[in-house]
Amino acid sequence: VLLPAELDRVRIVLVAARNPLNIGAAARAMSNFGFRRMRVVNSYDLAFRDARSAVGAADLLATAEQCESVAEAVADCQLVVGTTAVGRRELDHPLQRLEAGARLIRVALAETKPKSEKKNVALLFGSEKRGLSNEDLSHCDWLMHIPTRAGHLSMNLGQAVAICLYELIRDSEAAPLTSADEPAAAGELERVATVMLNALLVSGYTAEERKVSTEQILRRLLHRAKLGSGDMELLLGMLRQILWKARQADRRKVDEDFA
Amino acid sequence: VLLPAELDRVRIVLVAARNPLNIGAAARAMSNFGFRRMRVVNSYDLAFRDARSAVGAADLLATAEQCESVAEAVADCQLVVGTTAVGRRELDHPLQRLEAGARLIRVALAETKPKSEKKNVALLFGSEKRGLSNEDLSHCDWLMHIPTRAGHLSMNLGQAVAICLYELIRDSEAAPLTSADEPAAAGELERVATVMLNALLVSGYTAEERKVSTEQILRRLLHRAKLGSGDMELLLGMLRQILWKARQADRRKVDEDFA
Repeated sequence: VLLPAELDRVRIVLVAARNPLNIGAAARAMSNFGFRRMRVVNSYDLAFRDARSAVGAADLLATAEQCESVAEAVADCQLVVGTTAVGRRELDHPLQRLEAGARLIRVALAETKPKSEKKNVALLFGSEKRGLSNEDLSHCDWLMHIPTRAGHLSMNLGQAVAICLYELIRDSEAAPLTSADEPAAAGELERVATVMLNALLVSGYTAEERKVSTEQILRRLLHRAKLGSGDMELLLGMLRQILWKARQADRRKVDEDFA
Repeated sequence: VLLPAELDRVRIVLVAARNPLNIGAAARAMSNFGFRRMRVVNSYDLAFRDARSAVGAADLLATAEQCESVAEAVADCQLVVGTTAVGRRELDHPLQRLEAGARLIRVALAETKPKSEKKNVALLFGSEKRGLSNEDLSHCDWLMHIPTRAGHLSMNLGQAVAICLYELIRDSEAAPLTSADEPAAAGELERVATVMLNALLVSGYTAEERKVSTEQILRRLLHRAKLGSGDMELLLGMLRQILWKARQADRRKVDEDFA
């Protein structure tokens, strides 16, 4: 998991982005995942200005830097990683799948340099139509690609940025959470089974002589359901009310019989 | 890693999506990652029709199903998972972080039911403004959230779909790739060091009596650089040409001295 200081040492560099919606979407994803340093190279000035209205990411876009060249945008970075939809050109660079590339970036961000300064990392994204040019790629230490399928390699820019940043902050140790509800104890199951059994007897679903086998069927059903303690209480309340009503019907019938 | 048959058993259900760009972006991400079954509930008909022009995902949108209700959209699914930006409402459901939730979904897709049919899984996404309603959530077995930061929880719909699908197809075993270039052998380093040393001697950078220590400095530099075999060949060619030119200058000087 990346620390806030590490997030701040990542520069998201958009090269020649043309669509304000994509610049805005990239900014929004950065904000969602806690990244703050955006640099924009060679974008239409208008696209960049239009993007400044993006939902929930206005602060981030206000501090985004406009650079004249890729060289300027990565000048303070010790690791420069380009993103690419593979298959479009001969690649001289080592190419990492996102899962492995993100691991290498996290390692770089955690490394301490001899003078106790830490590394900055630039992550480059190319234009919507053409991706990064060979000139852009020559500034990169290595390239990274999102594992899209061969039939449809090219991703939307805003989605590609979102996925790369998600992979950087993702926690592979995140454990499955259990229900807020405590697992029900066997005693709670038994109380529910009893009330349900009485309702089945009263309603005529089960005859008195089949009581024991019905009770066993019910118990097994409730164990399979693996409900929580709160759910058992809810169910118990429902069944008690139904049982009460069913008994009323019986009582009314008795009244009618005696009428 | 999910098999094609497993990808086809996932239904991506968009509930009350309002923006054609988001429906199109969701479809594009599905196509990028090999998912094919989209269902749309309660979307403005117009939004859905506008979306049909989305880049690279026209086929997928053409076969998307319009449903009247969430119940209809999930009717053939044995596992129904809702997505949510947490923090907006009291949640009765068990809530999983995406990393853990995707693991549970992959397990469900791989399970075989007694009759040897396999489980279908529905993944529900709510509207851009409000997410899934309580009524929508009541159809879900459990909920999943993307780990966005507390200060900016809510994601763009197209990006949220892209990240969830990426997490489903992601391969945690993906190993770092190495350069296509073979690591250079020590002999190749030595050849480069020799030519470089001669260039340094000819150019006057190093005097003859410091030759040995300069050679050691060069050798250490080349070992640190960890270049590949192809790179060494490239460098050797460059240095040989430079050395040739530097020697020409020497020869010319000799010619001039004798003139």
